[in-house]
Amino acid sequence: MGDKRNVLWIMCDQLRFDYLSCYGHPHLQTPNIDKLAERGVRFNRAYVQSPICGPSRMSFYTGRYVRSHGSTWNGIPLRVGEPTLGDHLHEIGVRTVLVGKTHMRADTEGMARLGIAAESFIGARVAECGFEVFERDDGLHPDGPYGANPAYDSYLKAEGYDGPNQWENWANSAEGEDGEVLSGWLLGHADKPARVNAEHAETPYMIKRFKDFVEVAGDQPWCVHLSLIKPHWPYIVPAPYHDMYGADDVIPAIRSQAERENPHPVFGAFMGERVSKAFSNDKTRAKVIPAYMGLIKQIDDEIGKLMEYLEEKGLLENTMVVFTSDHGDYLGDHWMGEKELFHEPSVKIPLIVVDPRAEADCTRGTVNEDLVEAIDLAPTFVEFCGGTPKSNVLEGRSLLPLLESLEPVEWREFAISEYDYSMRNARMELGLPVADCRLAMITDKHWKFIHAEGMRPMLFDLQQDPTELQDLGANPNYAAERERMSEALFAWYRKHHTRITITDKQIAANAGKELQAGILIGYTDEEEVEETKHQQGLS
Amino acid sequence: MGDKRNVLWIMCDQLRFDYLSCYGHPHLQTPNIDKLAERGVRFNRAYVQSPICGPSRMSFYTGRYVRSHGSTWNGIPLRVGEPTLGDHLHEIGVRTVLVGKTHMRADTEGMARLGIAAESFIGARVAECGFEVFERDDGLHPDGPYGANPAYDSYLKAEGYDGPNQWENWANSAEGEDGEVLSGWLLGHADKPARVNAEHAETPYMIKRFKDFVEVAGDQPWCVHLSLIKPHWPYIVPAPYHDMYGADDVIPAIRSQAERENPHPVFGAFMGERVSKAFSNDKTRAKVIPAYMGLIKQIDDEIGKLMEYLEEKGLLENTMVVFTSDHGDYLGDHWMGEKELFHEPSVKIPLIVVDPRAEADCTRGTVNEDLVEAIDLAPTFVEFCGGTPKSNVLEGRSLLPLLESLEPVEWREFAISEYDYSMRNARMELGLPVADCRLAMITDKHWKFIHAEGMRPMLFDLQQDPTELQDLGANPNYAAERERMSEALFAWYRKHHTRITITDKQIAANAGKELQAGILIGYTDEEEVEETKHQQGLS
Repeated sequence: MGDKRNVLWIMCDQLRFDYLSCYGHPHLQTPNIDKLAERGVRFNRAYVQSPICGPSRMSFYTGRYVRSHGSTWNGIPLRVGEPTLGDHLHEIGVRTVLVGKTHMRADTEGMARLGIAAESFIGARVAECGFEVFERDDGLHPDGPYGANPAYDSYLKAEGYDGPNQWENWANSAEGEDGEVLSGWLLGHADKPARVNAEHAETPYMIKRFKDFVEVAGDQPWCVHLSLIKPHWPYIVPAPYHDMYGADDVIPAIRSQAERENPHPVFGAFMGERVSKAFSNDKTRAKVIPAYMGLIKQIDDEIGKLMEYLEEKGLLENTMVVFTSDHGDYLGDHWMGEKELFHEPSVKIPLIVVDPRAEADCTRGTVNEDLVEAIDLAPTFVEFCGGTPKSNVLEGRSLLPLLESLEPVEWREFAISEYDYSMRNARMELGLPVADCRLAMITDKHWKFIHAEGMRPMLFDLQQDPTELQDLGANPNYAAERERMSEALFAWYRKHHTRITITDKQIAANAGKELQAGILIGYTDEEEVEETKHQQGLS
Repeated sequence: MGDKRNVLWIMCDQLRFDYLSCYGHPHLQTPNIDKLAERGVRFNRAYVQSPICGPSRMSFYTGRYVRSHGSTWNGIPLRVGEPTLGDHLHEIGVRTVLVGKTHMRADTEGMARLGIAAESFIGARVAECGFEVFERDDGLHPDGPYGANPAYDSYLKAEGYDGPNQWENWANSAEGEDGEVLSGWLLGHADKPARVNAEHAETPYMIKRFKDFVEVAGDQPWCVHLSLIKPHWPYIVPAPYHDMYGADDVIPAIRSQAERENPHPVFGAFMGERVSKAFSNDKTRAKVIPAYMGLIKQIDDEIGKLMEYLEEKGLLENTMVVFTSDHGDYLGDHWMGEKELFHEPSVKIPLIVVDPRAEADCTRGTVNEDLVEAIDLAPTFVEFCGGTPKSNVLEGRSLLPLLESLEPVEWREFAISEYDYSMRNARMELGLPVADCRLAMITDKHWKFIHAEGMRPMLFDLQQDPTELQDLGANPNYAAERERMSEALFAWYRKHHTRITITDKQIAANAGKELQAGILIGYTDEEEVEETKHQQGLS
């Protein structure tokens, strides 16, 4: 393997960890993604730092906890000056290229304050979360403020899809019996095919765009974030994927009647959301989940072709390939739709890392059970590309040691995830101030503890109750576990999260240098000074 | 009072709260500073956010906790993008001008990353913590890396003080019987006069520089940070101040033998520092403290003249005058020298605010007992100058409500201070990793609780034991108090500290806007959409 190393970092949006055959789905076969797992390491306990797109991605892209980067919900700008993966890779000569979605919103106020013009070389990257944008497409383009007239619309137009808003009217709509356009936003239409040919859907389009990049990439090493919008809603997929799966392929919802009785207030509020009620209806699940599965099946097919392309191009031998998602999807589990809370279907993600180096041969095809966090990818990429991850900035840990050895590695004991629900109905329903809508999860594999500001916590025993049907947060028998997990969470909060301008090594190297600098603190006379200078080898 | 409002923000360095007659010193008369207290409000419970120059000042200058701005010790650069008082005042047309010390170190790496040139208009302010520098002088200029050849040297040279390094050899040195130069760094020389005339000492020099600014200030409103280096060490002062006070004027050290028996490990390590041992010697105290008092007396005299000048200039009626310090000085109390831990002589500061507005007439000459933090000044200045403090950025609270009413105001229940001792001998002595040298103090007026990472906490009962001689941190009778204070500290850690790019109001205003934007989550059919649109007044 040569010196030039690339990273192809594929991210799906809202892909549940267990909707892949390598992660155990009984009916959804994903042989191409499974092949990645055979060639690399499949991480079985990978958690996002927030179970929703924006903050989760800002953690992926900065390698830092939500607590640290401060972008706690979708659309909250990432503060200017927050170092990104792109900054770290830029320092070692690697391009960090975006093809697809980031959910980044620029801190235009901060950029103006610092005089950073968005059209400048640096400003363009600052505004795009450190990425060099080959194509950005956040994937939701209804008419209105989100409708950014994406390049995808022009592409569809050129392919013969007429009229306005191709994204909405073709790729994310179906047709009725009389040819009328039916909105793909509506769950009731999920069983119908989208109005585009499969080859023109968003997934193959964005993969095509990645190939377009490769064709013009040149010699500089790159890290490409191929960031697919699917299987994120609208839940609609073109033929033949729309009816590849049926109601029989839908695995039963993980839920119990007990969950609805006296639930934790935040859980209760989220169960009351429209989308949760919709997915609590088995008819809706039977209609929507097959479409969700079809979207994933299409991704798998396209990944297969993509890997062939990479092989043809001779890229496989020096390119790390990562496959992951930004969070999961409840799909009716726990009487919930969407994501946002901390049950495993929401907060746990698939993560497969294929490291082409010989050092990683010993772990190929294995499953890793360590607690991995989304923030680990940025330092992994930096180290893979030949850099040294900055531990004062990057709060994740490079996964390379886990890829290079089957022996147990000293590793973190807890994984953390956070959620700010101030933008959600739950805030209004619970009558809380915006600032108090804070949840924080901590897990050690055995226990999952969720701190809820101003309320009792939640607690799950992942060993006895792996499907998390029993909230032990108010059970007096588990006070000791709650106390222990709460203290571990407190310890995490207390850590340095913002001391990013100096390293521990620099501190150690600079300590105790006063005398050398002529700063004499507490010396009474010349003799004491001379004595100390002598001791310190300064005279 | 006209629309144009100025702020004169005088900060001393290392001035203990109780070394002023208005704060109760029995022998040190400071009539001019006392007069400020008569004209304004004297805050009796004002705490710095870290009991050492750098991080304390970064909190003053950003209005944010150390946890938030990340500059945890002297010389740790303030991260680029951290908004400053200067940024806030700039937005409302007020100049924020520095005359004296800040202890700022620029985040040159971050500035380079963002392409901010230090010589640009914005870059110059970013590099100087938001200040427009009229004169910066951090006050320590021994030969070596700190010796920045300050303008003060040229001033002294012009006044006839010859040779190299006037700061060290004249202003901070004394003379022996045979005319030999004796270093003012050495505590043994503290009773001798400095080698400059009183009028040429650093305090009157910097006040003169403030007047120079006023003469050229023009019409734009200003906030001037007149930041004096004294009574910070070197403890040496020119005649006649050098012998105005003697051993009889030195108040006895607050300490007990019990403090040395089985102390908290961090306290023990700090008691073992050279400077602590020096100040534990009563002979050293008798020699040094009179010089410290002389330095303060000179400040008081100069403040008197300064107020006359402001009156002559007609500035008193529209200028808020604030007098404070960046931390205290143990001076041998608790067997300690310097500052850095959380006993009152170190962490509590004098704070006097003279608000010229008629609204503040009702509080003139009163003493306020609320828990005030250093970070309260930035929002106070913003509000006084006509702005609205940004609560998402500024973590302090404007003091104006406390200045405008004698009635109790809803106010904070806890004050917080932090300290990172990774640069200190205590780290080596205790064998700790750099990242773990974290202390955090929380007080509610009655109790002062100090969390020490990896060790037992400290606890003081400020009501029963106001001089803090009894550490109850390991006393089993106080477990409930420790628990309560620890939980309050945890609650503070959990708060948003970095979500600075959006306000609570913006969140409240933007919540629940999906439908308006065409984002339909969880709708099954058109009917549901229409019904909801109708309910939300969208159709």
